[in-house]
Amino acid sequence: MNGKFIVIEGLEGAGKSNAVRVVNQVLAAQGIDFINTREPGGTPIAEALRDLWKQGIDGEHTTDKAEVLMIFAARTQLVETVIQPALAQGKWVVGDRHNMSSQAYQGGGRNLAALVDNIGNAILGDFEPDFTLYLDLDPAIGLARAKGRGALDRIEQQHIDFFYRTRQRYLALTQNNPKAVIINAEQSIEQVSADIQQAVENFIKMAK
Amino acid sequence: MNGKFIVIEGLEGAGKSNAVRVVNQVLAAQGIDFINTREPGGTPIAEALRDLWKQGIDGEHTTDKAEVLMIFAARTQLVETVIQPALAQGKWVVGDRHNMSSQAYQGGGRNLAALVDNIGNAILGDFEPDFTLYLDLDPAIGLARAKGRGALDRIEQQHIDFFYRTRQRYLALTQNNPKAVIINAEQSIEQVSADIQQAVENFIKMAK
Repeated sequence: MNGKFIVIEGLEGAGKSNAVRVVNQVLAAQGIDFINTREPGGTPIAEALRDLWKQGIDGEHTTDKAEVLMIFAARTQLVETVIQPALAQGKWVVGDRHNMSSQAYQGGGRNLAALVDNIGNAILGDFEPDFTLYLDLDPAIGLARAKGRGALDRIEQQHIDFFYRTRQRYLALTQNNPKAVIINAEQSIEQVSADIQQAVENFIKMAK
Repeated sequence: MNGKFIVIEGLEGAGKSNAVRVVNQVLAAQGIDFINTREPGGTPIAEALRDLWKQGIDGEHTTDKAEVLMIFAARTQLVETVIQPALAQGKWVVGDRHNMSSQAYQGGGRNLAALVDNIGNAILGDFEPDFTLYLDLDPAIGLARAKGRGALDRIEQQHIDFFYRTRQRYLALTQNNPKAVIINAEQSIEQVSADIQQAVENFIKMAK
């Protein structure tokens, strides 16, 4: 039987790294064989695309449209060479971001929804996560947490309105979505972790 | 008045570098201000994408779909930051390859026509060259010339059938296309150059 693809989504500072740890623990406790991925990235070529997009070269930065294409290039490279082979072997895949990030950040934040949907359909077809955990919080809270971690990256330097548009799109994509659960990421880390554990255990029961 | 975008297209060994020189000479002789571009490439980010696509990293090579996306990322970066600004300033642009290469190589050669057309429409809209010179020759002749230049690159190592499919698509895109001229690139370099000069002079007369 094919493995399942679980994805963690959310804004900067929402607690994705902690969420990945919690999901890993739940899967391990149930004896499920899994791998971790992150996007954009996860293969040498995809990581090179991530660096090029985040840092630019010689002071040049990607245009918004080039950003979308490079992120999808990294995504298809990862999906075709890592995620789909793992799922076909019966392994589960725990993804730190996937296509919903493009829909939310580039589609919502950058107002390129038609382009993102168009390319997403052309590249991914009907491939999608079996289960998405969206860590929801006020962008101002998340950015304050991200700032506490050090220098802000390309995305983190966007205007706050960008993140409100991104959050709005995340909510639109996850509310009333039977394959997604919204976690209130403004709670204490203990409560967030407990909610994630519960959601993943429920999903595993359904999936088995 | 906007400048004009002239593109040279053709298979490996068709004589694109010579064609660019001839076009440059004709434009210079008529006092037309122009710039040269090449694809994929032409900006630091686009060149980095070209290298990553051609060479891969750590033994990993791009999947066919990632290739399409990376080439379009390089293309939109070049179009938005170099080609369109130059045309808007009234400069002409002489391009060594543009979108027809994706249609022919990835669309024809790799049988990804629907994907290439889909992404091309989404990214470029109705932006297209004003004039295309397609240098047509039997792929076997072109590859023999390319081999004479040294080691073959990623594309040049494809099976000969790939190039026959690519040529077929080039011909389909340029035959009966009022914005394209097919040059017989199997002729002597002198005759090819004379044909190119004639074609460009005709285009300039029409364009003015």
